[in-house]
Amino acid sequence: MYKDKNLYVLDQRLLPHQESWLCCGDATDVVKMIRDMAVRGAPAIGIAAAYGYLLAARQLAEAGGSVTAHALEGAYEELAAARPTAVNLVWALNRMARSLMNVAADAPSAERVCLLEAEAQSIHQQDLVANLAMSQAGASLIAAGQSVLTHCNTGALATGGQGTALGVIRDAWAAGRIKGVFVDETRPWLQGARLTAWELQQESIPYHLICDSAAASVLASGKVGWVIVGADRVAANGDVANKIGTYSLAVLARHHGVKFMVVAPLATLDRDCPDGSQIEIEQRPADEVRALAGQPVAPAGAPVHNPAFDVTPAKLIDALVTEAGVVRHLDRDGIQRLFA
Amino acid sequence: MYKDKNLYVLDQRLLPHQESWLCCGDATDVVKMIRDMAVRGAPAIGIAAAYGYLLAARQLAEAGGSVTAHALEGAYEELAAARPTAVNLVWALNRMARSLMNVAADAPSAERVCLLEAEAQSIHQQDLVANLAMSQAGASLIAAGQSVLTHCNTGALATGGQGTALGVIRDAWAAGRIKGVFVDETRPWLQGARLTAWELQQESIPYHLICDSAAASVLASGKVGWVIVGADRVAANGDVANKIGTYSLAVLARHHGVKFMVVAPLATLDRDCPDGSQIEIEQRPADEVRALAGQPVAPAGAPVHNPAFDVTPAKLIDALVTEAGVVRHLDRDGIQRLFA
Repeated sequence: MYKDKNLYVLDQRLLPHQESWLCCGDATDVVKMIRDMAVRGAPAIGIAAAYGYLLAARQLAEAGGSVTAHALEGAYEELAAARPTAVNLVWALNRMARSLMNVAADAPSAERVCLLEAEAQSIHQQDLVANLAMSQAGASLIAAGQSVLTHCNTGALATGGQGTALGVIRDAWAAGRIKGVFVDETRPWLQGARLTAWELQQESIPYHLICDSAAASVLASGKVGWVIVGADRVAANGDVANKIGTYSLAVLARHHGVKFMVVAPLATLDRDCPDGSQIEIEQRPADEVRALAGQPVAPAGAPVHNPAFDVTPAKLIDALVTEAGVVRHLDRDGIQRLFA
Repeated sequence: MYKDKNLYVLDQRLLPHQESWLCCGDATDVVKMIRDMAVRGAPAIGIAAAYGYLLAARQLAEAGGSVTAHALEGAYEELAAARPTAVNLVWALNRMARSLMNVAADAPSAERVCLLEAEAQSIHQQDLVANLAMSQAGASLIAAGQSVLTHCNTGALATGGQGTALGVIRDAWAAGRIKGVFVDETRPWLQGARLTAWELQQESIPYHLICDSAAASVLASGKVGWVIVGADRVAANGDVANKIGTYSLAVLARHHGVKFMVVAPLATLDRDCPDGSQIEIEQRPADEVRALAGQPVAPAGAPVHNPAFDVTPAKLIDALVTEAGVVRHLDRDGIQRLFA
């Protein structure tokens, strides 16, 4: 939420127990909020970065500097490096920087800041509009009568509003197409337990929280028709990087004849990335796994392998839902057609 | 550990941070320790139950009662109901009760208690001997040069000593056959993070702790040759009930061409159970998932589906290792041959 020249973010590390808003006054604050996961979810990270760029521009203007993409390169780089995997971050920053290139050479700094504010708000607004379109399109794929399973948090908290995968689930529930939701707790950050459960509870959508490792037996039970997830980056061939555990679900879904849906706005599609092997997978700190809710749960100094994401090959994905349409047989051509 | 007419158990709920021994003076204490998971792991539960039966017999003798299987039926039932899935519990109790049937009708109570003590110690000792045999047999299946992945805790803590799957890993490491171990943290109880990591650390076997949901990407990396797990019950057709998440690993292992080994003493084989669909899967309390060490990690009252075990079909298992031999193509005949 942008207000009075500051960006306010709901601290997702404290949910669902505490609703605390953090105030970011400059780009460095925003970098810290993204890196420390006070704000998370690929689309929300993109939106926050856009506002971070705006804050840097405003600061520059107030210091009497000239607001140009060149002068803001430091802020751009700092924001872009906050987290490596979600491509929305760089996509949003590129939109901000490009908007400055289209302005008249003699436009005053105040006007440039004003333009950047409009661009950040447009990025935010377009994400919400995209989510509403995707929610409808995704929900229409679901045959009534079964439950769905989701991973991580892809709801209003992770986006500009409504949500990607959770937006589809919201619409599918409203349309009477699903019986309920199985929610993976999503270790190590517990976005499912803390955030998705909280969002579903607020909307009175019936759900069961499960440990990530229980998904296989739930899929074997025949109760689930679709696994529905978001994405942090979709490569040009349709491979999808998303929260660690997504690939596991895709293999398990295919094994059990359950359909697998990825819901992601075009901003998540990276046509410069040929395939999933080229996506940088962020390694997060060991303490995320060694401790839970501040309590140590492993021997001190235990060596940890903590990739934040994994890559699901396109061939395991039954539907990629974007605001530009749905791709059923996901491949390079399917991705191309979305941009046609 | 049985000493001075009491059973002492290392409280596994407090490991690795605190080594605290609990004293059980009667069968009811033992039931509580098993139900609350101070002692856990199918073989360890069986051994504890045997000593629980002994404590009940001693109490009966001291009260002047006649020590017979009939008089001990209450203790038998109470102990047998402590947890439903691991068959070792009932197997050990049956051995204790049967040993009383072979004694002379006029044998005094003191002699009967003495005989029960010997039987409990024999159950304990035989488990250790079985583990040593299985460790060698399992380790010999592993071609050198890769790592292994394991789930839950199947080490000295879960057994009479040495361990089942972790015993194989111990021997394979000593024989230079493995590079290291990937350890699933094993939600919700974190037996991997708390207990297996602790055992491996104590023996200086190199390992990496991973979230359960990261196993798929580790298996995709090609670093793992075998997934090695224990069992709580093996049905007559070879289906295996084990810690929730085991089935997930079996599907993922097969998908990636990684071999899948189950290590279990004959006491875990239930020939009266035709197949996995007949195994009762324990549902554990919701708070195991909703909270950790008193810290809530989900919305209050969040509905939880918390099965403690899942069932892996025999066809996904590449080797069942028992003290009576290894079965490579696991089916009803293979199980029968182990008892021949």
